[in-house]
Parts: sequence; structure tokens; C-alpha cells
Amino acid sequence: MKNEINIGLLGFGVVGSGVATILHKHQEDLIHKLGVPVKIKKILVKDATKKRDTELSEDIFTINADEVIEDPTIDLIVEVIGGTTEAKQSIERALRAGKGVVTANKDVMAQFGHELLNLADENKCDLFYEASVGGGIPLIRTLEDGLASDRIWALTGIVNGTTNFILTKMKHEKKSYEEALIEATELGFAEADPSADVDGIDAARKMAILASLAFSTVVRLEDVFVRGMKDIREGDLELAEQFGFTVKMAGSAKKDDDGIEISVEPVFIQNSHPLASVNNEFNAVYVYGDTVGETMFYGPGAGSLPTATSVTGDIVAACRNLLLGVNGKRLHAPRHFCTVKKDTQIFGRYFHRISVKDEVGVLTKLASIYSEHGASLATVIQREGDRHGGVDLIMITHHISRQQHLDIMNEMRNTPEVNGVISYYRVEGGNK
Amino acid sequence: MKNEINIGLLGFGVVGSGVATILHKHQEDLIHKLGVPVKIKKILVKDATKKRDTELSEDIFTINADEVIEDPTIDLIVEVIGGTTEAKQSIERALRAGKGVVTANKDVMAQFGHELLNLADENKCDLFYEASVGGGIPLIRTLEDGLASDRIWALTGIVNGTTNFILTKMKHEKKSYEEALIEATELGFAEADPSADVDGIDAARKMAILASLAFSTVVRLEDVFVRGMKDIREGDLELAEQFGFTVKMAGSAKKDDDGIEISVEPVFIQNSHPLASVNNEFNAVYVYGDTVGETMFYGPGAGSLPTATSVTGDIVAACRNLLLGVNGKRLHAPRHFCTVKKDTQIFGRYFHRISVKDEVGVLTKLASIYSEHGASLATVIQREGDRHGGVDLIMITHHISRQQHLDIMNEMRNTPEVNGVISYYRVEGGNK
Repeated sequence: MKNEINIGLLGFGVVGSGVATILHKHQEDLIHKLGVPVKIKKILVKDATKKRDTELSEDIFTINADEVIEDPTIDLIVEVIGGTTEAKQSIERALRAGKGVVTANKDVMAQFGHELLNLADENKCDLFYEASVGGGIPLIRTLEDGLASDRIWALTGIVNGTTNFILTKMKHEKKSYEEALIEATELGFAEADPSADVDGIDAARKMAILASLAFSTVVRLEDVFVRGMKDIREGDLELAEQFGFTVKMAGSAKKDDDGIEISVEPVFIQNSHPLASVNNEFNAVYVYGDTVGETMFYGPGAGSLPTATSVTGDIVAACRNLLLGVNGKRLHAPRHFCTVKKDTQIFGRYFHRISVKDEVGVLTKLASIYSEHGASLATVIQREGDRHGGVDLIMITHHISRQQHLDIMNEMRNTPEVNGVISYYRVEGGNK
Repeated sequence: MKNEINIGLLGFGVVGSGVATILHKHQEDLIHKLGVPVKIKKILVKDATKKRDTELSEDIFTINADEVIEDPTIDLIVEVIGGTTEAKQSIERALRAGKGVVTANKDVMAQFGHELLNLADENKCDLFYEASVGGGIPLIRTLEDGLASDRIWALTGIVNGTTNFILTKMKHEKKSYEEALIEATELGFAEADPSADVDGIDAARKMAILASLAFSTVVRLEDVFVRGMKDIREGDLELAEQFGFTVKMAGSAKKDDDGIEISVEPVFIQNSHPLASVNNEFNAVYVYGDTVGETMFYGPGAGSLPTATSVTGDIVAACRNLLLGVNGKRLHAPRHFCTVKKDTQIFGRYFHRISVKDEVGVLTKLASIYSEHGASLATVIQREGDRHGGVDLIMITHHISRQQHLDIMNEMRNTPEVNGVISYYRVEGGNK
């Protein structure tokens, strides 16, 4: 049995330094839990001579990746560089060198997760990636272990803190999208280029990772239907409120005998649903299981310390496996081959807001478009004139296919009575 | 390596039969996850000849506990009899016979958990008890593994489904306590004798189990300060609503350098807090960690299938340990000795509703009682006359000790101007 475990850290940004702080601060707890000390032996950085506010000795830092990955005394590599190319290569090299890997890298895991997990299996190494989804929320472990005996058939998740922060500020403080984005950037919740967040790509990556695990299959990023925040029109949030909904950027994944469907888009969530109350930068994933019913996991979706906590949780798990000699025994390899459903096979209720000219017969015209496409309506409301001199028609459909919905939207755009201004939302909640 | 795992089931009530159903239904998944089949070999029941709606063969049932516990081919005992004496003895016998044990028994775990876990350690056996708290929510595993690298300093939990169901019906459907209790009983959420639920004992048991684990210490049932639902007066729920609160039966556990404090009582939770939206029979535990910040775990707190799912999750974990030969390695034995804080050391904000005679000078009199006890008030409101011809005074304190609060309440009861009708709530949320 080893009498200590040595860690090589790739990257020393906010997450990396957070990991070092936690390992240092909780040293005694860790020795109690594992029986041996866990030490950081080498840290790969871009500039080894830079002044750092850390208790670590200077000679621990190196600019040479080989000194970390090739060091035979290092048992475990923790990858917190971010990005894809270098990170992926480093993970591959570490696994080939027989070292366990802990990563917080959602880009790499969403794009190359399946191949890297296979490589880990081949080399009898652990590859843990809890921090790649949901920051401090132990989601991956829960899906792997806690619900191991259940069959998960759906997941709905608020998995991007930036967009949730923006939507919360827009709803509760009546801020504009632009104002809310500036605040998010100032508080460090949004990156300088926020497009991956607001376009839904970041959430799509996380949904691909979660759905792969939940459904025990291989889900790729391109399997996710994505719509960004830019489709949210002024007034939509207030409208949602009037109808008892909250607008959220939500990921949804479902599986049935016909296949899987995965999406990230702005949706209307019923206010009584627990996800509607998930505010600010918080994340939450709502899980629908065959036997457990409904469970939800809530917490900080990002941030240096929460993410570092998840990384350290993985480090503890990997160390334990190393000490017990049971590393590299993944018991949850993908098992099912799933086809991604076509738009004609995916059903939901839709909320349509269509700005039309204030003319006689418009409502009849539009209603006929729905019936031509075989879509029945649950609610039809004509609203007071908007500031453009037109009126808003609100239609809430019964269950229709995404194809029907898209066809109707297309036809609306080509209908002369429609101003061309349309917004639409899938209605989420009450999933079955 | 074993080529199958045999299970002995003690009890075949709603949970036991649920476990059998899940194991049968998910057989293939389990073989994929573990590599070997998991079989129920013997089931202890009270009447072996009773007709049962099950696919299991008749000769699997026995009324002789020895046939289950002493069977050398049985690897794992699953205790779902309930009660304490027989259950505890069976668990002890199984552990002494070197068998792993999975139990859903919160009574046994709250009262004898520490001694049984030590016995399991001595015999190098696993003793798992996920289902004893929070039904289908994987709380124990999360506290043990997911947040392994964090230091938890507080937990707030809605851990009793019956009382939460009753309070939800009282709030949202304006039912009386009695009506709500009848509905809970009819739906199977409340037992024939609901006193353990409504008096807070059930929740206290679960809080003792959770706090022991979260704080890595030994918490006993008698360490928990308990107040039941009977202290909730008519009109209190509406009053809470007017002030932006929701009344919940909540467990609270906190730890700092001075010691630990654990309570179960009706509290006022700020409506913006996620726990305020946990409705009906659902449970949720809100965890405050040093580094992760705030996380919440939500799900069905009881019910046959959710509880059975947790039991089966434990079975999978125990089987995996058996197969890997790493059973009985508890890495989380209690580590800290904690003293339970005195009432003078426990601080909180309190909401006091005091019915007084409608006389001149009453407000001054009462206010002077607060200042005599060194308690400062955040809010003082005199309300419209109640139906008894008196008036209600509402006082919300700043942070005061529980001792100050109790002293003030005592003095109020002996003040002639007070009608003797008092209700009070600790204000929960914004924990630090």
C-alpha cells in the first residue's frame, strides 16, 4: 500500500489554485479519510517565475509538461488548464502513462469524453470529471452511484449560470438583457466573449455529458438541438409571468423506446415547478427516474471554490481507488445504442406570441394555419395593441411535434398579416 | 471472484417487495453494472404460506430468521422489517456472521447507528443505510463521497414528508390541520399513529443521522431540540405569508468552534429560500459547505418505490465492494468530539405573536420585557383585533440567544396583559 499520493496539477488558474488551497486547508481531514497524505508535487504553469500568493514552494512550478506527466512518482494528474487541444493531449498522455486523471474540462469531455473514457479503461486508470458539469453539485457521482439501480428517463437542467443570472436579473430587477449581461461580466459570471453561454453551447456540452451518463449511451454535442437567448423578445418575460411561467434557459433530455431527444433552449417553466425558483448563478438538475420518481440537485454551477471542491472530491475518490487497488474499474460503460429522434417524433406544448396587423379576420386566418397542420390549441388570447400599432396573439398549443411547431412558425413568417415578429417557447414541466 | 451475489431479505412489506421488484425488473442493467447476477435467495416473513402477488417462488419465503442470516451462501442481508429490537438484533447477527447489511431503518440507525457501524468495521462488513433518511434522495452517499473534500458547517432539512404534506395543504388549500392529517392518512403519507411525525421525533432521528455524518461526530437523538406541530396556532400560516415567510417543520444543524446545535421545530422560512418551495410529501436538505457554498438535494422523502430505490442503490454499492474485495472499509468514522451548545450559545432571529388585551400601555409594557432581557427588536407591529376581542402584537427580534427567547416567552406567559396565547417561530434562512 502506498504511503502517500502525489498529484501533478496542470494549470494554476482560479480552479487550480482553489484545489491547492482546499488540499492544504483540509490536509488533516484527508489524512483521516484516506490514511495517507495527499501532496501536490508539480504544477504546470505558463510562467514559473511569476509571483504567486500561495504557500507552495517555488520549485513546485514548472513550464515543462513532461516534468509533471512523465514523473513516475506522480500518481494522479489534475487537468485544470481549460481549452481543448492541449488539455486533451495531456489527458491522453497521462492515461497512457498509467496515471489517473481528474478534469474539470467540459469542452473536452463533451467532445472527446467517450474516447477518453475508453482510453482510461484500456489503461486501467480512473478518469473523473465531476467538475465539468454543475460546478459544486455532485451530479456525475449521483447519476453513477446514487441512482445506480434506477432507470432515468428524463433530465431537465439549468446548467449554465451566466444565462440563469441574466434571466433572474431581467425578471426580478426588470433589467434589460444588456444591463444584466454587463452585471454578470462585472461579477465574473460571464466571460469576455459570452457567446458560448448565451448561445446555449456551454449548456449543450453539459447536457451531452449528463445524458450520456443518465441514459448509458453515447450522446454527442451535435445531437443537441440548441437555441440561444437572442430569441427572447422584449416583453416575453412579463408575458410568461402573466401566464404563471418563468423563462429559463433549460436543457432537456428524454429517452423512450423510440430514441432520445436532447435540447437546450429558452423555455417556459411552470412557476410551481422547483426549477422555476432556481435563481441567479445557481444551477439545478431535475431527474425523472423510473422508480425514484423526481429528484433535484441544486447548487453553485460555477465559481472557483465550488468547482475546486468537485475536483477535490474526485481526487479523494481517485486516491481511494488507488489505495484500494481498484482504480480503472468503470462499471458504467455506455450500454445502449440510441438513435436521436426526428422532429416529427418529439412532442411538446408550445407558447407562441405572434405580432399581427390589427385587421379584421386575422385571428381566423392564423387559427386556420394551426388546424391545417393538425395542431390543436389549448389557449388563444388576443392582447392589447403593442407599441408598433399591431396586436399580439398568444396561442398555447396542446402536445404537437417539433416539426408541426416549426412548420407553423415558418408559415406564420410568410403570412402577410403577421408583422414578422414572433417568439415561441416550449412549455416545460409536467414531463410525462 | 464471486460469480453471483445472494441476498437475504428480512421483511417483505412495501419496501421489501419494492426491492424485489426493482432487482427483478433491472436484472440486465445490474448484470451489466456488476458483471454478475444478484439474486434474492431467502425472504423472512411472518407467514410463509400467505398468497403473494410476486414472481418469486414460494419456497423462497421462510418464517425462520436463521435460514436467512445463517445461510453461508448469502452474502448480503437487507433489513426492511422496521421496528427496533428485532431489526437491531438481526443486523448485529448478520454483521457478526460476516455479512454486509443494507437497512432502511431510521429508528435503529438514529439510536444505535454508531455502535452498529463500529460492529460493521470490526467485522470488515459494509453497513449501508441510505434509505433511512430522505427516501429516494441519495443524501448519505452525497455527504460521504460527493462533498468528501469539503467541510460542512450547516444543514437545513425538510426531512419528514407527513408534516410537509400537512403544512402544504394548510397553506395552499386552506385546510385545517385535522383535514390535512386525514388526507395524509388516506394517501398513506401518515401512519395510523402520526405522533412520531407531527411531534418531530421522526425528523429528529433523521437529523441526528445526517448531522453525525456531516460533522463527522456522534450525535444522539437526545441532542436534538424538538418542538412539534401542535405549537402552530390558527392564523400563523397566513401571518407568515403576510411577512413573506412559509411555515415549515425544519431540521437545522450547525457546527462552529463552540460546538453543535441541532433542532427540529416549526420555523419561518423566507419565501425566496429554495426550501420554502418544497411542497407536499417531498423532502429536501440544504447543505452549507465551507468551499462548495450552498447545495440542495430534493426528492421523494418516503414511499415504497423511492425508498426501495435507495435500498437497491446500497445493494449495488455493497455488491460492488464485495466483488472488488473492498467491503468493510469505512473511510468516514466519526472524527470529532463535539459538545452540544447550551441555549445561551445558540442564536437566531425569532418571530413572536403575542395576543394581548386591548388596553393602553400594553405595547410599552411588552417592549420593556424585551429590553430587560437585552433583546433588540427588528419589527414591532400591532394588528387588528382578533376574534377574542384582544389584539395581536407581532415582534421580530434581531439575533438573540435561545435562552433570551425562552426567558422572554416565560415572562410573557406570566404577564397579566397577555392573554396567554403565544406562538413563536425561529426565522430560518440566510444561515450565516
